Amino acid sequence: MALFPTKSRLAHIVFEHDDRASKTFDVVLLVAILLSVGIVILDSVKELHDAYGTYFYVLEWAFTILFTIEYGLRLWLSKRKLGYIFSFYGLVDLLAIIPTYLSIFFINTQFLVVIRSLRLLRVIMVLKLGRYLKDAEFLSDALRASRNKIQIFIASMITIVLIAGTVMYIVEGPESGFTSIPMSMYWAIVTLTTVGFGDITPLTPIGKLMASIIMLMGYGIIAVPTGIVTSEMTQAKSRRKLATARLCRKCEQLVMDKEAYFCKYCGEELPELK
Amino acid sequence: MALFPTKSRLAHIVFEHDDRASKTFDVVLLVAILLSVGIVILDSVKELHDAYGTYFYVLEWAFTILFTIEYGLRLWLSKRKLGYIFSFYGLVDLLAIIPTYLSIFFINTQFLVVIRSLRLLRVIMVLKLGRYLKDAEFLSDALRASRNKIQIFIASMITIVLIAGTVMYIVEGPESGFTSIPMSMYWAIVTLTTVGFGDITPLTPIGKLMASIIMLMGYGIIAVPTGIVTSEMTQAKSRRKLATARLCRKCEQLVMDKEAYFCKYCGEELPELK
Amino acid sequence: MALFPTKSRLAHIVFEHDDRASKTFDVVLLVAILLSVGIVILDSVKELHDAYGTYFYVLEWAFTILFTIEYGLRLWLSKRKLGYIFSFYGLVDLLAIIPTYLSIFFINTQFLVVIRSLRLLRVIMVLKLGRYLKDAEFLSDALRASRNKIQIFIASMITIVLIAGTVMYIVEGPESGFTSIPMSMYWAIVTLTTVGFGDITPLTPIGKLMASIIMLMGYGIIAVPTGIVTSEMTQAKSRRKLATARLCRKCEQLVMDKEAYFCKYCGEELPELK
Amino acid sequence: MALFPTKSRLAHIVFEHDDRASKTFDVVLLVAILLSVGIVILDSVKELHDAYGTYFYVLEWAFTILFTIEYGLRLWLSKRKLGYIFSFYGLVDLLAIIPTYLSIFFINTQFLVVIRSLRLLRVIMVLKLGRYLKDAEFLSDALRASRNKIQIFIASMITIVLIAGTVMYIVEGPESGFTSIPMSMYWAIVTLTTVGFGDITPLTPIGKLMASIIMLMGYGIIAVPTGIVTSEMTQAKSRRKLATARLCRKCEQLVMDKEAYFCKYCGEELPELK
Repeated sequence: MALFPTKSRLAHIVFEHDDRASKTFDVVLLVAILLSVGIVILDSVKELHDAYGTYFYVLEWAFTILFTIEYGLRLWLSKRKLGYIFSFYGLVDLLAIIPTYLSIFFINTQFLVVIRSLRLLRVIMVLKLGRYLKDAEFLSDALRASRNKIQIFIASMITIVLIAGTVMYIVEGPESGFTSIPMSMYWAIVTLTTVGFGDITPLTPIGKLMASIIMLMGYGIIAVPTGIVTSEMTQAKSRRKLATARLCRKCEQLVMDKEAYFCKYCGEELPELK
Repeated sequence: MALFPTKSRLAHIVFEHDDRASKTFDVVLLVAILLSVGIVILDSVKELHDAYGTYFYVLEWAFTILFTIEYGLRLWLSKRKLGYIFSFYGLVDLLAIIPTYLSIFFINTQFLVVIRSLRLLRVIMVLKLGRYLKDAEFLSDALRASRNKIQIFIASMITIVLIAGTVMYIVEGPESGFTSIPMSMYWAIVTLTTVGFGDITPLTPIGKLMASIIMLMGYGIIAVPTGIVTSEMTQAKSRRKLATARLCRKCEQLVMDKEAYFCKYCGEELPELK
Repeated sequence: MALFPTKSRLAHIVFEHDDRASKTFDVVLLVAILLSVGIVILDSVKELHDAYGTYFYVLEWAFTILFTIEYGLRLWLSKRKLGYIFSFYGLVDLLAIIPTYLSIFFINTQFLVVIRSLRLLRVIMVLKLGRYLKDAEFLSDALRASRNKIQIFIASMITIVLIAGTVMYIVEGPESGFTSIPMSMYWAIVTLTTVGFGDITPLTPIGKLMASIIMLMGYGIIAVPTGIVTSEMTQAKSRRKLATARLCRKCEQLVMDKEAYFCKYCGEELPELK
Repeated sequence: MALFPTKSRLAHIVFEHDDRASKTFDVVLLVAILLSVGIVILDSVKELHDAYGTYFYVLEWAFTILFTIEYGLRLWLSKRKLGYIFSFYGLVDLLAIIPTYLSIFFINTQFLVVIRSLRLLRVIMVLKLGRYLKDAEFLSDALRASRNKIQIFIASMITIVLIAGTVMYIVEGPESGFTSIPMSMYWAIVTLTTVGFGDITPLTPIGKLMASIIMLMGYGIIAVPTGIVTSEMTQAKSRRKLATARLCRKCEQLVMDKEAYFCKYCGEELPELK
């Protein structure tokens, strides 16, 4: 490796993952992201900030400048620059450096660099943690397939939250902490999702009765998103399954084993798969 | 469009959704409902009520009068007037205007106009957000099919709540907040649904032991409504699926693709679907 | 109907449900059970007890004497007296009258008469609420089939609760409310079941870290009982389904419709069902 | 049985479970484990410790010495000593005695002997509680099959917890209890898992809005692990099921009964299973 690699060599190191230099780049990036997120988390703890705040500050800027150089490099090396800027990963790369610069003008924004953790996604993928890929795809497929139904469900939830919140506001009133309809809607969400912080609770008998009904409703409703996702997953599984089903011509039994050449029940040659 | 449309033209605008005038009517209605519900929510916040209460009051009456005129219009234009009044949407239309009039005699009833949000249902449907329709139908079918089982489940829950509440009342007594059987039943519902506000908690060792048993019971019971809804959904899916399965006459493999004319495995013409 | 019915006539009224007298008996019983349970619930509310305690006391004894007479009647009319005493309903009938008599010697035991609500089971069944019967059977079948797996699950839960409770006891200690291992186990159950009362919460950083791990564990574990019950239900459904599947001899498509005589795809006569 | 059994006879008693002496050994072991765990639990209760602490101390050391002797015995009798030491049960056996010895140097470590409860696993298995074995295997199979997907899910959860925690830390700040990002992440886990202790709750309107979104997200997310486990279980069940399906040659109906020799619909001899 020359001291100053050519542009095409650099592009290889940054975008590919098949030789030593490019793999080293990926691992260094992974470690840098983890360290920079870790520093921000530690910096938010008052005791640690008081003791090591200056080191954290220097390190955070060092990482941010490093990631800024990397972002510039990616942009310079990209053939379709606009395409990179507005791609999912391009936006994440940008969002991962902006917060530190914003912290010059606003307080606390530097903590938003935790969205750097989203960058780990790409690194994890290229580091050939590939056995997870098929399963991750399976999960996101099932979730995408249930998107419409989940949206209908959320819309119904919001309507129920609106009406339940208003009823509780009228029944309980400000004395019990139900100081406004938005506050009551917050309580209704806390209750329907079975979180139940207990920061606001009904005090009157009628309020407790209404709350009981809302809780039983939430208990039944929780079955709906679970049912949606589960049935999508079960179907996705059985679809994959059925694609490999064959019927033996002789003994007429279903054979699900996709590697089989002969029927495991009678020995007849099976029709070829696919 | 004439300044004073004929009655049949008006009926077209109100009940149909296929030209510019009728579509404009739907959109105006949608915006008016959203605004009027929004105003009521904001009006319930004390700070906003103190600052803008008068504006909210005027706007709320304006919207109510508007919706009253619309209700009268719908009634006048309907061919079967009684049918409209007692239809689901007719009742919702009426309930959406009554609370404001009631607020002349009773306090706080004006907040009940949030049930106007149910009117959004109709508007959303006519605005051809149709890709959700099939999924909404699927969901309500699955829920309707599980209705009986859910009712049995609720009945069992109430019996468990009654007995668990009484036992906790006897074990813990008024000192821990279990002041009566209805109060204990409220606690039992809070606990069995895993909401767990923490406003009432057992203090004695025996009470904590009983509570632990009730919690584990609730943890197991939550599986039941989920199981009911999920199995209905899975079945509904596979029923739809199997209806499109065909067996190739030549290679004897299952073909699930409903658009196919020929077997994708061997090219043989498939038996016709349906 | 004579003024003093014969013994066989009385037995018919009590045990059968097919003519006017016996149906009246069932309805009177239903109302009496509901009233007596309702009175006990109301009597537990201090305000109502102070105001109407004497009436409640008299009514409760009246109902108890009534149910005692009924129990004696059932015993006298039964052919196999021991069989009745030790049957499920016989025991419930007995348990439903004992608490009031015990209240002469012990305080608060009279509230246990709420187990009278279990008697409603029999009355509901005979009142031909039969359309629920098949679904209730389906539910109890699925639960019975998953019994072994649920027991293994509960055993694993108890082991996790024991170890998690001990670790939290060592980490947090008495200052945070984790005063003993049984108390910590109570906290672990409250947390693993996602109830989360908040009466005991970890205060130290290490305690919060351990609690986070326990919560994520509980979140994953909740999938297990749900999975067990759901897969049993789905299987029970598909078993019922497959029993009605037939293959058309001519077009070789699966027909799930159990009422069909001819294939709905090609019109060929179907093989007879069963 | 001789007073001093031979080494091979001892090995039989310890490792086998087929005659009276070896079965007695298993039962004694079971009781000793239960008693020693019970003593540690009782010893952690202050009142009992103050009253009976000395007895508990003596008994705990007695059991520990007993289990140490048993560990030495197992080691001496094993043919492959290293294999035993590093096996799962070997490590559990060792971990079950170490805490008491550590308590000489550190306080409170003696409570860790509750991991002795894991030793019950082996005893339960050998005591031929075999009807649970197949179901336990089924459960652990389904969980193992969903391992990858659960890991992806946990990784996504941690990313969501990190970002949600940071946002809440910025929005709410130390006044509401969100004193640092790790503390906010603890809150995010408490909320996303629907535990909801209520020890930290958002106080500002924006904080409550963010919390509402996080709660609704957690409510939807809970469907994912449930869906994963359920679909694995359903598939495992139907796989087992389909393996026993046969098609009758004459009447062409599916026969699921694996014990059948003849078709229950037409009497034709069925193709042999497997």
